[in-house]
Amino acid sequence: MDAPPPLRPVELPRASQGWAALRDDVRTGIWRWRPALGLAADIPEITLGEGHTPVAALPRWGAAHGLPRALVKLEYLGPTGSFKDRGAAAVIAALLHQGAASIVEDSSGNAGAAMAAYAARAGLAARIFVPASAPQAKRDQIGGYGAQVVAVAGTREDVARAAEEAAADQDAAYASHARHPAFVEGTKTFGLEVAAQLRADPPRHLVLPVGNGGLLLGAAKAYQELAAAGFGVTCPRLHAAQADACAPLAAAFAAGADDPLPVQARPTLAGGVAVGRPARGAAVLAALRASGGSAVRVTDAEARAARRDLAHLEGLDVEYTTAVAFAAAARLRATGVVQPHESVLIAATGSGLKDAGT
Amino acid sequence: MDAPPPLRPVELPRASQGWAALRDDVRTGIWRWRPALGLAADIPEITLGEGHTPVAALPRWGAAHGLPRALVKLEYLGPTGSFKDRGAAAVIAALLHQGAASIVEDSSGNAGAAMAAYAARAGLAARIFVPASAPQAKRDQIGGYGAQVVAVAGTREDVARAAEEAAADQDAAYASHARHPAFVEGTKTFGLEVAAQLRADPPRHLVLPVGNGGLLLGAAKAYQELAAAGFGVTCPRLHAAQADACAPLAAAFAAGADDPLPVQARPTLAGGVAVGRPARGAAVLAALRASGGSAVRVTDAEARAARRDLAHLEGLDVEYTTAVAFAAAARLRATGVVQPHESVLIAATGSGLKDAGT
Repeated sequence: MDAPPPLRPVELPRASQGWAALRDDVRTGIWRWRPALGLAADIPEITLGEGHTPVAALPRWGAAHGLPRALVKLEYLGPTGSFKDRGAAAVIAALLHQGAASIVEDSSGNAGAAMAAYAARAGLAARIFVPASAPQAKRDQIGGYGAQVVAVAGTREDVARAAEEAAADQDAAYASHARHPAFVEGTKTFGLEVAAQLRADPPRHLVLPVGNGGLLLGAAKAYQELAAAGFGVTCPRLHAAQADACAPLAAAFAAGADDPLPVQARPTLAGGVAVGRPARGAAVLAALRASGGSAVRVTDAEARAARRDLAHLEGLDVEYTTAVAFAAAARLRATGVVQPHESVLIAATGSGLKDAGT
Repeated sequence: MDAPPPLRPVELPRASQGWAALRDDVRTGIWRWRPALGLAADIPEITLGEGHTPVAALPRWGAAHGLPRALVKLEYLGPTGSFKDRGAAAVIAALLHQGAASIVEDSSGNAGAAMAAYAARAGLAARIFVPASAPQAKRDQIGGYGAQVVAVAGTREDVARAAEEAAADQDAAYASHARHPAFVEGTKTFGLEVAAQLRADPPRHLVLPVGNGGLLLGAAKAYQELAAAGFGVTCPRLHAAQADACAPLAAAFAAGADDPLPVQARPTLAGGVAVGRPARGAAVLAALRASGGSAVRVTDAEARAARRDLAHLEGLDVEYTTAVAFAAAARLRATGVVQPHESVLIAATGSGLKDAGT
């Protein structure tokens, strides 16, 4: 396959035309934001109804953690149970538009499931490369969509290399959530929704679990483009939550470095953020700093406690990777980065059903 | 606890005021339909963002089954992964409004998880009675929300009796998805959404998995009330999908009986529709007949094939209980009840993550 074509330069309708000009409420999925997406004008609309997720208050959890204005956006209400569906819809549509008949992707879980689902939806064959250590439940979800699951021994980077080589050898398209530019166009719809849903009372802080940073970069891009179009929005302070066991971005942020620092990763419950060498790491660090945000690392014990807390106090069951963001929000309050009167929006990126029984 | 208060008589805004009068798009969850709900005017709004689910076309699955106009409504995109969240939000709000401090419920799965989650959200203690045969994964999901899970040996009716007795003995409220009238007010929002989302091209047929019939009765009530308010809608032909192993409604429908027929239930993959004595069975049968619909039974082998088909052809992973409805839709086409040019909406009621690895 050829390299991805450059994105279409986005020229948003001017703010004077209002939000309705940005959004088509008859369409479902990310395509309702089509005027705001930097994708080819004649791209096919591959959708399973992803996105358009609700925001809910967290009164009881917030009270317990000194965050009376805590909010959650239920990003796990996607067809495959994670926010990755937004990006997968965009990447698969872009590859179909380029003439792909099959795709490869490397993932240890949620991105693999999302790409497998949207590939099936588009009638594309899919091969998903996973680390040999990937949990059986994740492999089952990927294989359930008819994708071929290929286990690779070695590091996470070895798995990515195997996928890249397969794409080069076999003329399959590399549907990389970590590298393909359309992925961030898809996740940008998260930021557009936050800005639109909360325009009456915008959040001061946005806390997200960050592995490769696709969701965080989508949010930053949405605010940047909306501001340029005159929508009068201010990007929330962006905070990246990482697992203590594998925190190349948090380490770099603390050290003042422009690039992710090399880490000796340890095992963690939060597999979705355990990315030792994030491809878009420098862009993530720049976005954190530009917004006045930070990067936070939390332990598996904190993530476990946060998951339980959230389920018992609010009836929300999230996967451990997501729980990392809730633990990080509590930590940001405890360390004074977040003030009690400030609103904090936390992205619940993955369903607890993905970590059932653990 | 006292018996549930009677529902508020619904007086919908007249159709001349338009859909906007029915719906408040700033609120999330079922409460955006508040003007249309027959609940107390000052009821608290307990919500986790349930409902407001997308509708998607099924071009590849539809082509494979001679149903070119097949559509799916992704009801499993609820906070706990099933449509039960709509009803649970309404029941828990009603009980909180009545002064309940704790609830009991009996369920073999999805309803128990939904009630446990919304009870946690409302700060109510919950005890969920489950059959001793309930799968561990279902118990884990319920217990994850902090609810006490009580296993009862015997029939499904023995489990219900144990819950009812506990409610009487211990002054806990009986949050029964099978009996509490607020549950159907919650599921009615499904019907309101279908009517609103597809008003330009309404579906001719609606196929749903039916155990107790809460979703089907909610849909029927929505259309009845909208028609009475002058909205000019016609209820789709309602088709109840049941598992061959436990089909008291399909048996009654075929026999022309007004009440569910007694059945000797066998084990089935589709646990969510395996209700031997549905409390609202007579109402379900009446609604099927009034709409010109039917009841269909399918085998576990058909459900298994339908689940696989849907995942491979469209990228949608549903639980076996939901797959029963897809198998039933194919059967309705094969037997000529559904004509090739007619549109068919199928309710995807439960996430495949609930049946992961099976």
